[in-house]
Amino acid sequence: MRKVLLAAGISLDGYIARPDGSFDFLFVPKGFSMEPFFRTIDAEIMGRKTYEASVKAGAKYGSKQCFVYSRSMPQGERDGVVFTRKSPAQLVAEIRKRKGKNISLAGGGEMAREFLKADLVDEIDLGVVPVLLGDGIPLFPAGFPQRNFALIENKTYSRGLIELKYRRVRRGGSRGKT
Amino acid sequence: MRKVLLAAGISLDGYIARPDGSFDFLFVPKGFSMEPFFRTIDAEIMGRKTYEASVKAGAKYGSKQCFVYSRSMPQGERDGVVFTRKSPAQLVAEIRKRKGKNISLAGGGEMAREFLKADLVDEIDLGVVPVLLGDGIPLFPAGFPQRNFALIENKTYSRGLIELKYRRVRRGGSRGKT
Repeated sequence: MRKVLLAAGISLDGYIARPDGSFDFLFVPKGFSMEPFFRTIDAEIMGRKTYEASVKAGAKYGSKQCFVYSRSMPQGERDGVVFTRKSPAQLVAEIRKRKGKNISLAGGGEMAREFLKADLVDEIDLGVVPVLLGDGIPLFPAGFPQRNFALIENKTYSRGLIELKYRRVRRGGSRGKT
Repeated sequence: MRKVLLAAGISLDGYIARPDGSFDFLFVPKGFSMEPFFRTIDAEIMGRKTYEASVKAGAKYGSKQCFVYSRSMPQGERDGVVFTRKSPAQLVAEIRKRKGKNISLAGGGEMAREFLKADLVDEIDLGVVPVLLGDGIPLFPAGFPQRNFALIENKTYSRGLIELKYRRVRRGGSRGKT
């Protein structure tokens, strides 16, 4: 089954960005590459703000399936992405109808919360930056039920970055339980 | 100089307790002991709620200096602890007047924030439990300036607990800067 992966760089206090949306505190340490991760995915889901920030930063879409959550934009395919208002469960079920690689949740926190609510997050891959920001946009905003994970990998890089990988543990095989 | 250490068990989404204050999700993994940590400290500072919860849980005070922050309790020494309303800077300066071991910030989050505001936290020692709670009492509530740290140790234990130790990095030797 195509897994749903949540990967993000975060501060030690759990923020993906400063209050104004900037993420200058993130860095790519020596020997770290997103390439191996990107090779395992061929579909991306993101929120509208993340999409607009990444387009501004020069991102091009079209090489893989990309879905953008937006209440304000008209639904449908444009500029290599599909704007959607479907529920996380509906969207993931639809993507999974076709065979393919894994599905990446590319941000931000509000979207992550909706996917955790629906218990659709299979793996979490965090790059923890050794800084307390003191305020910002959280990766895990409150408002979803408890979800248990297993630590499957950890790796330290230069400048104090540590990568932590977790896999969702669903007890008794039933979704919706911790 | 006697260092101020912040040690806590937290969920992957940064909570030290559930919304009702319970912390049943925390566990002590095989081979993990707080003894080495406790040997390095001889003074403890905590908030009133943490103090009352620990007394309820059977903690005894008197073997080491213990300071409890409380706005509602009369100041002064009782039952082996000192109730105080001094500013974090004042209190730490006073403790440091005497030679001794390190000083532990024993919780909770509101107190941690005040000490981070005053840039008094020298080391952070986190035991990260592999669970997303979805809501709770954060170790790092928003409302203090950026503080940079260096990762000095990491160690994995049974049941997916990872311990992360950080040391405060004060650039240019000046306090109050990131």
